[in-house]
Amino acid sequence: MRIGLAQINTTVGDLSGNRKKIIATYRQLRSEGADLVVFPELAVCGYPPRDLLLKRRFVSDTEESLLEIAAETDHIPLLVGYVETNPGGTGRSFFNAAAFCQNTAIMANARKCLLPTYDVFDEDRYFESAAKPTIINHNGLKIAVTICEDIWTHPTLTSRPRYTSSPIEELRDQSIDLHINLSASPWHFSKENTRENLITETAKNCAAPLIYCNAVGGNDELIFDGRSMIADTSGNIVAGLKAFREDIRIFDLEPTNPSIDPSFKQTDMQDIKEALVLGLRDYAHKSGFRKALLGLSGGIDSAVTAALAVEALGSENVTGISLPSQISSQHSRDDARILAENLKIDFQTLPIANIVAAAEKTLAPLFDKSEAGTAEENVQARSRGLLLMAVSNKFGSLLLTTGNKSELAVGYCTLYGDMAGGLAVISDLPKTKVYELARFINKDKEIIPVSSIEKPPSAELRPDQKDEDSLPPYPILDAILKGYIEEGLSSRDLIAQGFDQALVKDIIRKVDLNEYKRKQAAPGLKITPLAFGVGRRIPIVQKYVS
Amino acid sequence: MRIGLAQINTTVGDLSGNRKKIIATYRQLRSEGADLVVFPELAVCGYPPRDLLLKRRFVSDTEESLLEIAAETDHIPLLVGYVETNPGGTGRSFFNAAAFCQNTAIMANARKCLLPTYDVFDEDRYFESAAKPTIINHNGLKIAVTICEDIWTHPTLTSRPRYTSSPIEELRDQSIDLHINLSASPWHFSKENTRENLITETAKNCAAPLIYCNAVGGNDELIFDGRSMIADTSGNIVAGLKAFREDIRIFDLEPTNPSIDPSFKQTDMQDIKEALVLGLRDYAHKSGFRKALLGLSGGIDSAVTAALAVEALGSENVTGISLPSQISSQHSRDDARILAENLKIDFQTLPIANIVAAAEKTLAPLFDKSEAGTAEENVQARSRGLLLMAVSNKFGSLLLTTGNKSELAVGYCTLYGDMAGGLAVISDLPKTKVYELARFINKDKEIIPVSSIEKPPSAELRPDQKDEDSLPPYPILDAILKGYIEEGLSSRDLIAQGFDQALVKDIIRKVDLNEYKRKQAAPGLKITPLAFGVGRRIPIVQKYVS
Repeated sequence: MRIGLAQINTTVGDLSGNRKKIIATYRQLRSEGADLVVFPELAVCGYPPRDLLLKRRFVSDTEESLLEIAAETDHIPLLVGYVETNPGGTGRSFFNAAAFCQNTAIMANARKCLLPTYDVFDEDRYFESAAKPTIINHNGLKIAVTICEDIWTHPTLTSRPRYTSSPIEELRDQSIDLHINLSASPWHFSKENTRENLITETAKNCAAPLIYCNAVGGNDELIFDGRSMIADTSGNIVAGLKAFREDIRIFDLEPTNPSIDPSFKQTDMQDIKEALVLGLRDYAHKSGFRKALLGLSGGIDSAVTAALAVEALGSENVTGISLPSQISSQHSRDDARILAENLKIDFQTLPIANIVAAAEKTLAPLFDKSEAGTAEENVQARSRGLLLMAVSNKFGSLLLTTGNKSELAVGYCTLYGDMAGGLAVISDLPKTKVYELARFINKDKEIIPVSSIEKPPSAELRPDQKDEDSLPPYPILDAILKGYIEEGLSSRDLIAQGFDQALVKDIIRKVDLNEYKRKQAAPGLKITPLAFGVGRRIPIVQKYVS
Repeated sequence: MRIGLAQINTTVGDLSGNRKKIIATYRQLRSEGADLVVFPELAVCGYPPRDLLLKRRFVSDTEESLLEIAAETDHIPLLVGYVETNPGGTGRSFFNAAAFCQNTAIMANARKCLLPTYDVFDEDRYFESAAKPTIINHNGLKIAVTICEDIWTHPTLTSRPRYTSSPIEELRDQSIDLHINLSASPWHFSKENTRENLITETAKNCAAPLIYCNAVGGNDELIFDGRSMIADTSGNIVAGLKAFREDIRIFDLEPTNPSIDPSFKQTDMQDIKEALVLGLRDYAHKSGFRKALLGLSGGIDSAVTAALAVEALGSENVTGISLPSQISSQHSRDDARILAENLKIDFQTLPIANIVAAAEKTLAPLFDKSEAGTAEENVQARSRGLLLMAVSNKFGSLLLTTGNKSELAVGYCTLYGDMAGGLAVISDLPKTKVYELARFINKDKEIIPVSSIEKPPSAELRPDQKDEDSLPPYPILDAILKGYIEEGLSSRDLIAQGFDQALVKDIIRKVDLNEYKRKQAAPGLKITPLAFGVGRRIPIVQKYVS
């Protein structure tokens, strides 16, 4: 049996665009000899549709789009994810489903049993769960069809909520011939290893080959890495598709001819870079931006962001703007200019001195000779935000913010200042990883000036300021932040791990105090198991002391 | 039996503060002769705790706090909501529970059966559901204990998701003597009527008196209105506690002596005003702000916001700042000043001309004599945002944003400009309701200058600009927005209702395009069934055309 794997990049809500892509891909794979063509979870409407599902006509429009897709099929079946109105429901209850389409009709529906409702997922908000996975009889074969989470119940490989049923256990004794899983599984750092092990175990458990078709592309904060794969009955991965790219290809189940794309397994840094490039490109292009701009401080964060933007959008579509103040060092200005030259991007300089002076003069009667402090530092950062947004508005370019996860965690950033922008490219990358990524970007030649990487980081909002005046060294900060934010540890736990008590309490206090800033931050591309944003829902006003 | 109703205002995560309040209230009601003291849902940790529940020690800390509360009880029972680790679970599965404490111990636990997972609620993310409501035998009485959503299953009174079980049906044939429901039911416009009917029906259905103890107070976007009540066996409401205020009182079940607080039923406008005042006050005070400031444009939105701030925080704690430009009309400046005088608040003037001029001069080489447009208008709004934030940072005052729901819907507002601030006070109030509220605030004397109410609304970002140059009259705009946003209608539905086709498509396009602005908006107080913010989760990048 020749399986056509359609690892496509869909856009949320773009029913007509997604439909055209699905039909064209089906025709292509069919003409290349596929016996069955498989698409990802919810490919008809894009994933995650979120509250679009609550609009009165969204599901019926999705179902109509599916009918148009089904109408294009002949005897070669097409299996695609969509939203199905629960035929036994009241009209407002839905399944996350897969339609098996053949000979212009929907021949069968398979429905998702396990609905992820944690982290970035809210599927219980929208869907009913099916009691059991579906088995479709096709040409004498028993084909089990599951959807994404349905296979994520392994007792040791996943730490997901314990569900009361296991679709895999259901399938175990059913002598299935083939198992197809449609997924939209967002990537985070090193998730692909878990996923591969899970697919191996699932194939062995069900004693059947497993076809895993995953979505690819960026949708808001989420980045889907593709990496669709096929495991044989013994659990060997015999096909592995591209990472972070569309990939449409046919794989013959027997005799198998193993085919693993080189990007299926690649280094962590390559993964991180490609994830961010894809997330940035899709965010921009899917929302209609061809061009982006960003402030270049001469520091490492803006340098890394600029390099990613060039890879995502092309150097001709990126503008770097230096916004020096009287405090900015000459070496920072030089580093910004050299970076722009290395990246071959448009480079502009907009000094902030006049705006800052005008603001300070305006505020002087009210501030009454009080000592300069955070308020004045923020005026500098907000003058930059004002200028960058003006350029963004004037030329229709997407403003990228350049803050990293460590800064955002402790609030070492200015709301409406350096936080201004439409997309936070590296906001889920801890500072220590920013350094790694900078070195990786430079691995073949110096793109990011080495001095941007090697000098002590500074916000340059007051003379001789260094990040480490206010913060511990980044390796220590990042370790505490990972424990507190990603692992949910308390100060007691962290102190027991050997971190300094006063330091831990100070860092935690800063993280908690700055929740209000993060609530107004630009959406950020998620690359860790727990990113700020939609998957982390901490109240702003709260007084829990852990 | 004398029931002590403890309608208290807790703070999310403030285990020690909440515990002190619970113990003090228990002692007070006990000393006044209560036979049983009832607190709201999750009162021990505050509602909604959201992802605090995922922190490693949050639940065990909450359980320890409950034990300290239980230790203070004697033979008079205390019933209070908390989070219980599922004794049959893996240690990371929890119930939204109520503890029946007596004689220093927890005598029984009642667990929530129905977990709301829609709108602002995510309870499936955190909790296990119990199969059945709990009946506690106390002094020969069968007391059923349910939690909030458990009673929201009436087939016609609620439009909530159909649950597969009904705790009320379970209780129906159990000959219970008393039914107690612990709630944290956030208020929205006119919800109290539905709730009252529901409680009447539930009491009749179970043929037992129903004690309904609801939380009061603001926690982030949510405003809990209290209005705890008691229905007798026939469903008559015999006790009704205060709206939007703490209320701690004893009610004798027999003979009943009906006691309905005047605020239990009051006008819609009184409700809206008190809701916003409470939400604002609690947001400020619970996060440590005594003082607030806001920009006063002379328009109706900032005037209403200022009046609410004065009622919430006291006139001595509110600063109004006029930020005139060369475009600002004299009547607007006068209206701002008169409002400040009427409200007896500190009034400052910070002209933006110098900052705008400095920004325009800085941008001139890049903008190259292009025609002034949105970019330049936004520079004005962002200069105001910069100055207001500088004052906020300098004096530690909470900056309030003043935008209404209609503006925010169509993006008639500037990100980092007039959208800058810590709390959006009236962002869930459509413009037509802002007018109603302004007139209500003025009902006894002119606080808001009548000219602020009667003049045509204008952003005053270019000469002679009027809102109605870009937008339809607000009654039409608000009707379309309500259909599109709150009712989920499509353009087809709205056109079928008689609205102009081009207008509907233009408004919908604006709403969709401006999702990115709302994603970065300050949290806003929720007063409608569907507010922007945590209860509305529309992707930013999406292309659904309805």
